[in-house]
Amino acid sequence: MALIVQKYGGSSVADANGVKRVAKRIAESKRAGNDVVVVVSAMGDTTDELIDLANAITPLPPSREMDILLTAGERISMSLLAMAIANLGVEARSFTGQQAGVITDDVHGKARIIDVTPSRIQAAIDDGAVAIVAGFQGVTQHTNDVTTLGRGGSDTTAVALAAALKADVCEIYSDVDGVFTADPRIVPSARKIDRINYDEMLEMAASGAKVLVLRCVEYARRYNVPIHVRSSFSAHPGTMVMNYEPAEGADEGADVEQPIIAGVAHDSSEAKITVVGVPDVPGTAAHIFEVVAGSGANIDMIVQNVSAAATGLTDISFTLPASDGTLAMAALSESQDEIGFASLQYDDTIGKLSLIGAGMKSHPGVSARLFAALSAAGINIEMISTSEIRISVVTRSDQLADAVRAVHTAFDLDSTEDEAVVYGGTGR
Amino acid sequence: MALIVQKYGGSSVADANGVKRVAKRIAESKRAGNDVVVVVSAMGDTTDELIDLANAITPLPPSREMDILLTAGERISMSLLAMAIANLGVEARSFTGQQAGVITDDVHGKARIIDVTPSRIQAAIDDGAVAIVAGFQGVTQHTNDVTTLGRGGSDTTAVALAAALKADVCEIYSDVDGVFTADPRIVPSARKIDRINYDEMLEMAASGAKVLVLRCVEYARRYNVPIHVRSSFSAHPGTMVMNYEPAEGADEGADVEQPIIAGVAHDSSEAKITVVGVPDVPGTAAHIFEVVAGSGANIDMIVQNVSAAATGLTDISFTLPASDGTLAMAALSESQDEIGFASLQYDDTIGKLSLIGAGMKSHPGVSARLFAALSAAGINIEMISTSEIRISVVTRSDQLADAVRAVHTAFDLDSTEDEAVVYGGTGR
Repeated sequence: MALIVQKYGGSSVADANGVKRVAKRIAESKRAGNDVVVVVSAMGDTTDELIDLANAITPLPPSREMDILLTAGERISMSLLAMAIANLGVEARSFTGQQAGVITDDVHGKARIIDVTPSRIQAAIDDGAVAIVAGFQGVTQHTNDVTTLGRGGSDTTAVALAAALKADVCEIYSDVDGVFTADPRIVPSARKIDRINYDEMLEMAASGAKVLVLRCVEYARRYNVPIHVRSSFSAHPGTMVMNYEPAEGADEGADVEQPIIAGVAHDSSEAKITVVGVPDVPGTAAHIFEVVAGSGANIDMIVQNVSAAATGLTDISFTLPASDGTLAMAALSESQDEIGFASLQYDDTIGKLSLIGAGMKSHPGVSARLFAALSAAGINIEMISTSEIRISVVTRSDQLADAVRAVHTAFDLDSTEDEAVVYGGTGR
Repeated sequence: MALIVQKYGGSSVADANGVKRVAKRIAESKRAGNDVVVVVSAMGDTTDELIDLANAITPLPPSREMDILLTAGERISMSLLAMAIANLGVEARSFTGQQAGVITDDVHGKARIIDVTPSRIQAAIDDGAVAIVAGFQGVTQHTNDVTTLGRGGSDTTAVALAAALKADVCEIYSDVDGVFTADPRIVPSARKIDRINYDEMLEMAASGAKVLVLRCVEYARRYNVPIHVRSSFSAHPGTMVMNYEPAEGADEGADVEQPIIAGVAHDSSEAKITVVGVPDVPGTAAHIFEVVAGSGANIDMIVQNVSAAATGLTDISFTLPASDGTLAMAALSESQDEIGFASLQYDDTIGKLSLIGAGMKSHPGVSARLFAALSAAGINIEMISTSEIRISVVTRSDQLADAVRAVHTAFDLDSTEDEAVVYGGTGR
C-alpha cells in the first residue's frame, strides 16, 4: 500500500463533468489500496474571472484582499471534488491550506512555504478517508492571514505535502501526457520522456519548459520527492522526475534508456539589453548589474565584448525576462552619468534555445554538434551560456522554432512513431 | 463617535457597481467619525449558483462540504468590498467568520452561534481600519471546521458582532426601506414603521414578515442591540427596532407616535392537518403532538372542536410549515392504530393573518374590530390564536390578500401620502 499525493490542475476540473471524472480516478486509486491525498486547483477560468471582478473594482487591489478573493476558487473546487468522491461511496474531506497546515511567509501573492504541519491530513488518512487540499494557498505563521503561493503554487503545495507526509510519489496531473523532449506544438515529433532526474528537470523548467515550475522541482529535489507528471485525460504513464544518476562510464550503446540529451527547451519571453560604450575598467560591470538587480529584475545571460583597444570602451549585453525590461531600462538610464556608458539598446525579439542533459557532462563534442546543427539551418547565434548539463544560445525570435527543430533532429530526439499528444501549461 | 455595525445583503452587492456604491456609503460613515464594522453577504445569485454546481455533482452533498462551498460566496464579496473601500482611501481589512471569532456548534448548514470573540475585529477598529466580516459563517469550537448559519445568518452575524463589540447600533441594509405596517406588494398604502420594540418585531417576524428573521431579533433582544433596518439604495432613515415600552396609560390621542397596532403580517407558507375522529379522552392530544414533534415538524396553531356527545369523538386541527407537512403526515399515519383516530386531512390552501401591536394589551375591543373587518369583507375565519400582543387568524389562502387590506384599513394603518416603496426578502 502506497501513500500517493495527487495534484489536479484547473483544466482537469474545468466543469462538473471534469470534477466527476477526476473523482472517479481518485476513487480508483483509493480502492486499489492506496492512501490518497489530493491537491486541487481552482476550476478552469475561475481565477481569471475573480481577477476580472477585482479589476472592475479597483486598478490596484490590496494584495492581502486579492489573496482572500483568489482562494475562493480552490474552496469551490475542493468542496465539489469531496462531494463527487463521497458520491462514489468513498469518504472524502476537504481542507483549506490553513487546515492542511501549509504555513507561509507573509508575502501576499507569492508567498513561500516555510513549514507544513499536516496533522489533520494525517488524521484523515488514518481514518481511511481521502483528504482533498486546496492548492495554491497557505496561512501566515503569526497573523493567521490567508496567502497565495503564486504561479505553480498548487504543484508546490502537492510536493510540499508529499514531503511532509513522506509520500511514496507525488502525481501531478494536467492536460499534458508528461515532460517532452521539446514542445510538441513546435516539434511534432517530440517524444515523451519516461524518466528524468531533478537536475535536468530544473534546467528544463528554468529554460522555458512549462510543464513544471522551477520552485516545485527545487522543493522535490531538496526533499527527494519522486514526481510523476501525467495526464488526467488518459491512463498512460507519464514522466517520472526522480533521483536518477547515469551509471559510471555508460554511453549511448551501453544503455539506450539513458540518452545523452534529455530535451530541448525554448523560451521567447526574454529581452536583451545592451549597454553600449562602457569604460573597460574594473568594477563597471559590477556597477551595472547592481543597478539592474536593484530594479528588481532577474538577469539571465551575460556577454561582454572584447574591448576596442583604441577607445578602451566595450559593450555589455544581458538577457532578462521581458516583463522586467521597463524597470531595468529606467534604472540604468537614471544611472547613466554615474556608470558612464554611451547608450542603451533594448531588443525583445530574441529567443533562447537550451539543450539539456546530464549525459553531456561526460560526452565531449555536444556543443560542436549543437553549433553545427544551427549553422546548417542558417541560424545565427548571438549569445551562449553553459552549465554542466545545459547549453543555451540566443537567436532571433523568428528563427527560434526552426532552431529547436534542427537541434531536436541533430541529437536523435525525434520520435519514430506518430504519437498524438496534447501539450499546454499547467496554470498554477 | 459611535461604533456602528452595518450589514449589507446580497442584493446590495449584486455586482461591481453595487460593491462600489456600498463602499462609498461605508467610507462616508467612517469619515463622519464613526468606527465601522461591516458584515456582508454573498453577491446577488452567487449562493444559488454554488448550490447549482453542487447539485450537478451529487443529489446529496455532504453538509460539511456544502458549508465549505457556500462560504466561498462571502469570501468573494468581503474581499471585493475591502478593495473598493481601500480604493476610496479608507483602510479596510476583511475577515472570515473564523478570523472574526464567530464560534458555532457543529450543525452544518444551520449552525447556531455559541460565542463571539472578535479580538481581531477590535484590533482593526483600534487601528482605525474598517473591518469587513463574512456573514453567514462561523467555525466549530473544537474541530475548526467551517459552518454556515442558515437562513438569515448574515443578519444574525451582524447582531452577534454588535453585541460582542458593544456597538451603538446594528444597521441592517437591504433593498427595503424598513419594516412596514404590511407587505407593500399586497397593501400599496402600507406605511414604514419608524420605531418598533423587540416583542412586536419578534411577533412580526414569527408571523411572516420577511425583513428580519426571528433568530436575529431574538439575539438582539437578549443583548439589547438596537437594530436600524434600512435601504442601501436610499439615504432615508428606516425602522428602529429597540427597547421601547409605551408610556403608562398612553392612548392614541395622547401619543400619535405610538399606535395601538404596529402592523399586519401574513404568511401563506403554512398548511393545516386535521386529525378526524379522535377519542375525546385525556392524553390523546398530547400523544398526537408528541408524534408530530418527533417527526421534526414545528406546530403553530391548534384548534380542538367540541366533541360530539353521541360519539365521544372529536377533531383536532393544527397548522405547521407546509415544508414539514409530508414528514408530519407520515408520522401520524404510522401511529394511527396507537392513537386511534379515524382519518387525516391535509390542506395547504390556507393563509394566516396576524395583527401585532404592544398597544393592544391595554386596548379592549381589538379582536372585535378585527373580526368585524373580516366579516364585512366576507372572509371566513377558520382558526384563531392570540398572544398578549398578537391576534392571528387562518383564512382561505385566496382570501388572504383581501383580508390583509381590510384589516390594514380598519386599524387606520393606511398611509395618506403616496410613498414609492420597494419591498422584498433579505435572502440571508
